[in-house]
Amino acid sequence: MARIHNFSAGPASLPLPVLEELRDALVDFRGGGAGIMEISHRGKVFQSVIDSAMSRMRSLFAIPSDYAVLFLQGGATQQFHQVPLNLIGAGGAADYVGTGTWSSKAFKDARRVGDAVWAFDGKTVDFRRIPTDAELQVRTEATYLHYTTNNTIYGTQFHRTPRSPVPLVVDMSSDIGCRPFDVAAHDLIYAGAQKNLGPSGVTAVILSPWAVEQSRRTAAALPQGLPAILDYGLYVDDGSMYNTPNTFGIYALERVLAWIEGLGGLSAMEVRNRAKAELLYAELDRSAFWTPRAQADSRSWMNVTWRLPTDELDAAFVKEAEAAGLAALKGHRSAGGIRASLYNAIELESVQALVDFMQEFERRRG
Amino acid sequence: MARIHNFSAGPASLPLPVLEELRDALVDFRGGGAGIMEISHRGKVFQSVIDSAMSRMRSLFAIPSDYAVLFLQGGATQQFHQVPLNLIGAGGAADYVGTGTWSSKAFKDARRVGDAVWAFDGKTVDFRRIPTDAELQVRTEATYLHYTTNNTIYGTQFHRTPRSPVPLVVDMSSDIGCRPFDVAAHDLIYAGAQKNLGPSGVTAVILSPWAVEQSRRTAAALPQGLPAILDYGLYVDDGSMYNTPNTFGIYALERVLAWIEGLGGLSAMEVRNRAKAELLYAELDRSAFWTPRAQADSRSWMNVTWRLPTDELDAAFVKEAEAAGLAALKGHRSAGGIRASLYNAIELESVQALVDFMQEFERRRG
Repeated sequence: MARIHNFSAGPASLPLPVLEELRDALVDFRGGGAGIMEISHRGKVFQSVIDSAMSRMRSLFAIPSDYAVLFLQGGATQQFHQVPLNLIGAGGAADYVGTGTWSSKAFKDARRVGDAVWAFDGKTVDFRRIPTDAELQVRTEATYLHYTTNNTIYGTQFHRTPRSPVPLVVDMSSDIGCRPFDVAAHDLIYAGAQKNLGPSGVTAVILSPWAVEQSRRTAAALPQGLPAILDYGLYVDDGSMYNTPNTFGIYALERVLAWIEGLGGLSAMEVRNRAKAELLYAELDRSAFWTPRAQADSRSWMNVTWRLPTDELDAAFVKEAEAAGLAALKGHRSAGGIRASLYNAIELESVQALVDFMQEFERRRG
Repeated sequence: MARIHNFSAGPASLPLPVLEELRDALVDFRGGGAGIMEISHRGKVFQSVIDSAMSRMRSLFAIPSDYAVLFLQGGATQQFHQVPLNLIGAGGAADYVGTGTWSSKAFKDARRVGDAVWAFDGKTVDFRRIPTDAELQVRTEATYLHYTTNNTIYGTQFHRTPRSPVPLVVDMSSDIGCRPFDVAAHDLIYAGAQKNLGPSGVTAVILSPWAVEQSRRTAAALPQGLPAILDYGLYVDDGSMYNTPNTFGIYALERVLAWIEGLGGLSAMEVRNRAKAELLYAELDRSAFWTPRAQADSRSWMNVTWRLPTDELDAAFVKEAEAAGLAALKGHRSAGGIRASLYNAIELESVQALVDFMQEFERRRG
């Protein structure tokens, strides 16, 4: 059938031209007589793929040249453990900004490793907004401050870099690449690829020289060092290929980065994503039939969340939208309501189709 | 170009019919209007994929119904840490059978977690053979005995289940599915998919009820429990989807399992793989021009390793073979010589083409 308007929160829609390129690479990659999944990660052909992925990451995100770029596995969930293990595994403390489910999971795994406390607990505001800098209580002796740029479930997003007296660590899984970002203001950035960068199974990790050195200090201080799979230093030394990486996933990510470049880079993504978000939020603000979940200054460009007057209308909306080719609009089970995810690959025309459907639905059921 | 004869040690050749199915799934999976990589792992469509993958694993490998099957990320390298962390992380001891590079890496990570010793150290026999049962020194108080069925680098393979007084844990990354296997004789089986089961980025893990309970005991005994990403119990409870799995990789694995079923299952794989191995080893035994590396009783069906009379001839062989469409025959950098990997997807005709080339090469250069 024709491609649907796919508002999935992740794994999510990918650019059609990228999917077509991937399709062509499966049986015979670059005329070598074997598919992209069938070649050694140690060979020249795959090396050129991962080199290109790293180079495009560096260029698109203006990553300082002394920062390291890794493509790991295990998603953000692995980073929830790997980050504190490498940064405070031999001592130190970490402060966490709680803005939703994912920061709570990160916090829980940090407490398994060492001294972690909330710098802000979003439960106090029902996760409806992002904290102000004045609300962040960061211990000056903390090794790092961790925050989550975007919250897929509640639909909130940081629209600034938080002010912090200590190194910043950030989970950008659900909005990396949605617009330019100040990499140099951070010491460790991680993102599961399955929203804006590619398929699930690849995690981009960007480390400052401080983060790499802190990982090496931890490894040296622990009697037995760090487990290989969780040792940033080892992966930095081996160009992200200490063991076999997700080769197909990295190629897919490389193609998505090329697609972003082709559209004009992150500034172009910003224009594109702002237009999509403004179109949908304008509709939410137009009628009292819709109740947006997030406070206005904290609204996410990536995941737009709202409710209709009743649970029954929420359910009817999701069902009828699906029948109209507007898929995956049901809110996360822990938040309810409606959620439309507008990641990079979503076209403005899909958002327009959604808004048209909303207005038509309100006329019939409002 | 035409598909080459691809003897890559991994990521490795995949069945052409599977690649063609994957190609067709990228843009529009099962007529749903979105590709296999673009749908939520929490939706019905992907649930049916992972259910099918698990069900095919259970059926093909005759897995006891009370065993758990997981599809994780991070390859065998993650298991090198996760296995000891879950099984002896709160106390206990583990014995390891050393038969090559991979068992050494597993051993090193086990020593980071607890009391691990060699039950047999293959360095004493230059990794040319698998130990006999009489050579295994297993502590009766050990929590488990770990071994590696097949050694990709040196080209040796266990052709029996070792006798052990304690639960058996096995790394089958490079020969899982090459023939029937006694799952019930083992308590924990793991395998990176990228040799016989699919692309890199997926790891199959099979756990006995004892292994799951031991993991839960460890989690309960540790003051902070286990990190989520490394907690087998959590993944068992969540049907392998505590976090977003490698959805495309799991679908690819599911298709490879269906392909194996279609050819007649693991008994048919045994016939197929035995024929390929016998053909190539017969050629190695035919002429003194070839010097096989592994001792005859320990020869691997999956990775056949040998040398020519000189390093120069090794290099010429690899180069000329490549020009003749026989790719990826260079031995691992730590072992040198030639290596032909004959995983499940390799056809007998590819091995015949290799043998023909070998005979022609010997006539010219021998």
